[in-house]
Amino acid sequence: MSKERLYLFDTTLRDGAQTNGVDFSVEDKVQVARLLDGLGVDYVEGGYPGANPTDTAFFAEKRTKRATFTAFGMTKRPGVSLSNDPGLKLLLDAKADAICFVAKTWDYHVKVALGTTNEANLESISQSVSAAREAGKEVLLDCEHFFDGYKANPDYALACAKAAYDAGARWVVLCDTNGGTLPEEIGAIVTEVTRVVPGDHLGIHAHDDTEQAVANSLAAVRAGVRQIQGTLNGIGERCGNANLTSLIPTLMLKPVYADAYEIGVSDESLAGLTKLAHRFDELVNRSPNRQAAYVGASAFATKAGIHASAIVKDPKTYEHVDPARVGNRRHVLVSDQAGKANLVSEMERMGIAVGRDDPRLESLLREVKHRESVGYAYEAAGASFELLARRKLGGVPDYFDVEGFHVTVERRHNAIGELVTVSEAVVKLIVGGERLLTVAEGNGPVNALDTALRKDLGVYRDVIADLELIDFKVRILNGGTGAVTRVLIESADGTGDSWFTVGVSENIVDASFEALHDSLIYKLLRSGAKAVA
Amino acid sequence: MSKERLYLFDTTLRDGAQTNGVDFSVEDKVQVARLLDGLGVDYVEGGYPGANPTDTAFFAEKRTKRATFTAFGMTKRPGVSLSNDPGLKLLLDAKADAICFVAKTWDYHVKVALGTTNEANLESISQSVSAAREAGKEVLLDCEHFFDGYKANPDYALACAKAAYDAGARWVVLCDTNGGTLPEEIGAIVTEVTRVVPGDHLGIHAHDDTEQAVANSLAAVRAGVRQIQGTLNGIGERCGNANLTSLIPTLMLKPVYADAYEIGVSDESLAGLTKLAHRFDELVNRSPNRQAAYVGASAFATKAGIHASAIVKDPKTYEHVDPARVGNRRHVLVSDQAGKANLVSEMERMGIAVGRDDPRLESLLREVKHRESVGYAYEAAGASFELLARRKLGGVPDYFDVEGFHVTVERRHNAIGELVTVSEAVVKLIVGGERLLTVAEGNGPVNALDTALRKDLGVYRDVIADLELIDFKVRILNGGTGAVTRVLIESADGTGDSWFTVGVSENIVDASFEALHDSLIYKLLRSGAKAVA
Repeated sequence: MSKERLYLFDTTLRDGAQTNGVDFSVEDKVQVARLLDGLGVDYVEGGYPGANPTDTAFFAEKRTKRATFTAFGMTKRPGVSLSNDPGLKLLLDAKADAICFVAKTWDYHVKVALGTTNEANLESISQSVSAAREAGKEVLLDCEHFFDGYKANPDYALACAKAAYDAGARWVVLCDTNGGTLPEEIGAIVTEVTRVVPGDHLGIHAHDDTEQAVANSLAAVRAGVRQIQGTLNGIGERCGNANLTSLIPTLMLKPVYADAYEIGVSDESLAGLTKLAHRFDELVNRSPNRQAAYVGASAFATKAGIHASAIVKDPKTYEHVDPARVGNRRHVLVSDQAGKANLVSEMERMGIAVGRDDPRLESLLREVKHRESVGYAYEAAGASFELLARRKLGGVPDYFDVEGFHVTVERRHNAIGELVTVSEAVVKLIVGGERLLTVAEGNGPVNALDTALRKDLGVYRDVIADLELIDFKVRILNGGTGAVTRVLIESADGTGDSWFTVGVSENIVDASFEALHDSLIYKLLRSGAKAVA
Repeated sequence: MSKERLYLFDTTLRDGAQTNGVDFSVEDKVQVARLLDGLGVDYVEGGYPGANPTDTAFFAEKRTKRATFTAFGMTKRPGVSLSNDPGLKLLLDAKADAICFVAKTWDYHVKVALGTTNEANLESISQSVSAAREAGKEVLLDCEHFFDGYKANPDYALACAKAAYDAGARWVVLCDTNGGTLPEEIGAIVTEVTRVVPGDHLGIHAHDDTEQAVANSLAAVRAGVRQIQGTLNGIGERCGNANLTSLIPTLMLKPVYADAYEIGVSDESLAGLTKLAHRFDELVNRSPNRQAAYVGASAFATKAGIHASAIVKDPKTYEHVDPARVGNRRHVLVSDQAGKANLVSEMERMGIAVGRDDPRLESLLREVKHRESVGYAYEAAGASFELLARRKLGGVPDYFDVEGFHVTVERRHNAIGELVTVSEAVVKLIVGGERLLTVAEGNGPVNALDTALRKDLGVYRDVIADLELIDFKVRILNGGTGAVTRVLIESADGTGDSWFTVGVSENIVDASFEALHDSLIYKLLRSGAKAVA
């Protein structure tokens, strides 16, 4: 039996950007687009060119290789001609493969929010779709408030959908804009819509305001739509959008869907989903949701309760899917077995040969577990993990010793009466028996420390000359007074490679120093430097 | 038309206690039981007496006034007589109104995990239910793995359900133990079960492993069950249990359910739901999920974008329910794209009267935009925004002046040769003409600065005595060397209110100082302190 194709439309960079506290830079957007492209979604909606400088800059070039790169924007303003609508022109000029227009389809909003007539709005939909088609773009129409609009005036809501379809829109997307529609209502209304627009031209855009965005999306699929819009980890305005990170495994692993449909995500990409979800959280600086379906750290964890011993006997019947399929793993607190196998394969990846029965493995595992319990995140800091593993196995040379450091930050009035803040760091190292003191100023304490640490590394000076600090992220764990600070640093060198290191301490300067120090050692190691200490 | 009664069964204190990181004390359990009783759930499952000392102590007395206080435990062990099962005796002796037995209903598990025959398991169900009935208890049976069991052997799964019902169980609860069943499967299977056990004796126990526990619970209700099991804020093993905090408003506010069913929660209790959800999070020491349906801080928040001006015009059509019904409120976030209308409505909410044509509004808007372009995030820092707005309109007293501060962080060997890191801050203030110097040590530079800043604020000392730093978040914007640091601080005082302030600088210590300073000024302002400067 041939399967029907379902299309995934990702709006992390557009609707997801409406999330409280999320604020993408252009560079963030480039990275997220790359993640999505690798995952295998069909569409990446990058933003709203013309609405703000970030989105305009992001659309200065095409940002995806596989996925259809999509720009979001309004249909033509009623009452002006196509050529007199500068917003529309910006959209057509954006370096996008597709344009997703948003249009009102609830007659009440056409009147109150747009202040125009139903007819003028229909005309605006048709003309905008046609204009974008003529400009060589694939076209989508987001039908705003479709379900509320349908309840109020079904004929008009359907007329809007049909106008877009008739004008050549590839997709007509039914949006539950305020997120309050229930799955049974979605199913019933979509069924009606398929009488006017064929299901393989319909999409669903659901929000989680009743905690049913995933169920609403699947109800729409069962009723006939063939495109699902959503975001990574379900970010989005208010309660968030439909969570693609939950939907993808359900579509691929649950026979009800997997037997009937196929999507563009490969089994290999699926196996990277847990890692991708965590990387995305790091990128937007949110703490990963431990309880997230499929990819959460607790998704396959069992506290020793009534199930634990039975799980050890026969894990499969206690897990609704195999955690390895989504790159997650079983955590049964009574057994370390999964951890050890994991560790060995991780070390093999780094080129460290180790026997499965090597006793040092047990001790490394204990140390990793202990360190993660106090806040280290080795999943996001591969270089620090590699150093830890190599140290346990005796493979990291003793390049230099740190005697101490000293950082000051002072805010004071300068000679001309301005309030200025000055940061200064002193670092004391011992390299090859020689005591080196360096001092540097910086924008802040970490910058000063980084600069001082790398200012003079004696014999290693040339080796680290091309080392660069790319990114620096700080997270406070546990909140309140007992808080611990985790610092994640991304470094790169002339080869174009980058690596991540981590530091954890009650003290942010200490945590930063640890991560900077790991990065430096990793750089010396990867450059094959010989220890002189 | 008379409505059918739906019953809510809360298992926060039993299945919720399986949550990774949750660890209730007896006192915690007493408090949660009180919250639940006040909310109006019908059953409070308090734990598993005999399984651990906490639960045994908790069941030494009845802990609810209105709700049926329920003890959880295993059915009689196969192969021993009723009187020879000490676990069962403990259960019958617990000071509970009802007993919820858990039994295997999947033949595979009967064989593999119990190591007994299908017949012996059925007998164990019947005898346990009867014994509890004879002890004067109301009885429930949790059918473990019911849906997987039904798929494997429908006759046996149904026989288990029927055995409990025939023996006098008030409720037979269908458990989706591994959480992998989909709503359409739940609906179809429940429909079959109602042919054997009447729907008003059936319950549903769903887990969130496909992010559909709420949808699964509602699908079961539509198919006939009349009891829903779940937890506060959806805590629970793995991905959590069905979230009662989401289900209750849907059942009460969505006509599809509200017109057909009634539950034991009053409109008044519903209006306290947001507060209750946050109090519960505090109790278990989790940070509240901002995106939670109905009760999340972002559940009715809109970032300017395309909707904001329309929301100000007519909020109702943009909100699927009135936020006041669940004790939440609308937030129209001030941000990048903020319009004037937005600003005015936000200021009205803060009690700042301002005419729409006031020229200072234009200047405030420009300043907000400028500041957001350099990294401030006022949408997440309402108190800093309020200070900015009030300053523009001349309403913030000049409480004190900051002459400067000085922070040092030093890592060195202490007297006994250990490497230690010491942070110290000196703050110089002028309060009412008096120059105040304070010094403090801390875990890190920010903690030292916070402590020094609040150590002696002269005449304001008593006003700020109950000020507390709740959370501290750091974000590095733009990455790399040109990076800017944004610090977000949450503060609270004795009233239980909390507020957010923001600071932005190249220097993390500077940014922290700005946010701490804003928080202090905000506290003085909200306490009505008089300026002496």
